[in-house]
Amino acid sequence: MNDIEEIIQALVEFRDERDWAQFHNPKDLALALNIEAGELLEAFLWKPSEQAGIDKVKEELADVLAFAFLLAEKYDFNVKQIMLEKIEKNALKYPVGKSKGVAKKYTDL
Amino acid sequence: MNDIEEIIQALVEFRDERDWAQFHNPKDLALALNIEAGELLEAFLWKPSEQAGIDKVKEELADVLAFAFLLAEKYDFNVKQIMLEKIEKNALKYPVGKSKGVAKKYTDL
Amino acid sequence: MNDIEEIIQALVEFRDERDWAQFHNPKDLALALNIEAGELLEAFLWKPSEQAGIDKVKEELADVLAFAFLLAEKYDFNVKQIMLEKIEKNALKYPVGKSKGVAKKYTDL
Amino acid sequence: MNDIEEIIQALVEFRDERDWAQFHNPKDLALALNIEAGELLEAFLWKPSEQAGIDKVKEELADVLAFAFLLAEKYDFNVKQIMLEKIEKNALKYPVGKSKGVAKKYTDL
Repeated sequence: MNDIEEIIQALVEFRDERDWAQFHNPKDLALALNIEAGELLEAFLWKPSEQAGIDKVKEELADVLAFAFLLAEKYDFNVKQIMLEKIEKNALKYPVGKSKGVAKKYTDL
Repeated sequence: MNDIEEIIQALVEFRDERDWAQFHNPKDLALALNIEAGELLEAFLWKPSEQAGIDKVKEELADVLAFAFLLAEKYDFNVKQIMLEKIEKNALKYPVGKSKGVAKKYTDL
Repeated sequence: MNDIEEIIQALVEFRDERDWAQFHNPKDLALALNIEAGELLEAFLWKPSEQAGIDKVKEELADVLAFAFLLAEKYDFNVKQIMLEKIEKNALKYPVGKSKGVAKKYTDL
Repeated sequence: MNDIEEIIQALVEFRDERDWAQFHNPKDLALALNIEAGELLEAFLWKPSEQAGIDKVKEELADVLAFAFLLAEKYDFNVKQIMLEKIEKNALKYPVGKSKGVAKKYTDL
C-alpha cells in the first residue's frame, strides 16, 4: 500500500468510527475544504510569510489535505493520477517559452 | 520513492522549468490554494452534489492539491507525517463517544 | 430610500427578472460569496498590493458585496444595524489598550 | 451623510483608534475578507440552509461586509456606484432571454 492509500485509510477509519460518512457528501466536503483553506490563510494575515506561525500552517494545511483526500475518496479518484494529468494539462496552458519568469494567468499570456 | 514524493518532484520540475520559485513564497501559495478552493466550490454552486460536473471537480481538486503539496515542500513538511499527526490530534478533539453521528464543531460538543 | 436599500432593490430586480430566487438559498449564496472572494484574492496573487489591477479589484469586490447584500436581504437583516452591532461587539474583543498597534487575533491578545 | 458613508466612518474610527491602518494594505484586507467568508460558510457546513444558526450568519456576514467596505475605502471606491455598474455589466453577460430560470455561468449559456 502506498502513502496516499495509507493516509486515506486512516481518514476513512477516523470518519467511520464517528459515523460521519452521512454528512460527507461532496458539496459539504468542498465547503469544509474551503473553510480550512481560510484558516490556513489566517496564518499569513497582516504579516509577511516569514512571520507566519509554522505550527498553525502545518495543522491547517493538514486539515485542507484531509478534506481534499476525503473528496478524492468519495469520487474514487486516484490522487496521483489526477495530479499528474493536471500537470500535463497545465503544461499546455503555460508553455515554458511564454511563461518563464512570468507570473501571469494563462488567459493573459 | 513513494507516490507523494513523486508528485512533489513533478510539481517542482514544472515550477522550476518556468522559473516560478521566485513567486512561490508561502503566503502567496496559501492565496493560490484558496483561489483554487473557490474554483472547486464553483463546481457545486446552485446545485446538489449529484449535479456537479465530475471533470471540473477533478481538475480543481488537483489544483488545490498541487498548491498544498508545493506549500508542504516549501516548509519541508512530510505530508504523511503531518496528516497522521493531525488525525491523532483531531481524535482528542472529537472523542468517539461524544461525536458519533454528530456533525458539531468540537467547541460545541 | 437610503443607498443600501436602493442597491438591494436593484439586485433583487436583476435576480427576479431572471427568475433566480429559486437558486438563491442562503447556503448557496454563502458559496457564491466565497467564490467571488476567491476571485478578488486573485487580483493580488503573486504580487504586492500596488500591482493589483484596480478594475479587477473593483469588479470582484462589487460581486462579493452583491452576494453579501442578497444574503442580508434573504434573512431580512438590516445591513447598517448588523454592521454597527458587530463593531460594538468587536470593540469589546479588541479593547484599545490591548490592541493598539498590534495585529493579533483577540484570542492571542 | 448616507448609510454607507456612516458605516465606513464607524469602521475607520474603529481602525484608527487601534492604529491598524498600518496593517490594512489592500492585499491583506482581501485575505481578511476571505477568512471571514470562510467563517460565514462554516455556518452552513454539514447542514441545509434552514439549520444554519442565524446569529452566526449575521455576525460573520457583518465581518465580511466590514472588510469589503474597508477595502472600498482604501481605493476610494464609491460602493453604490461600483455595485450599480457591475449590475449593468452582469446584465450584458446574463441577458434575460438566455438566463431566465437557468443557473449556469455566462460562459456556459
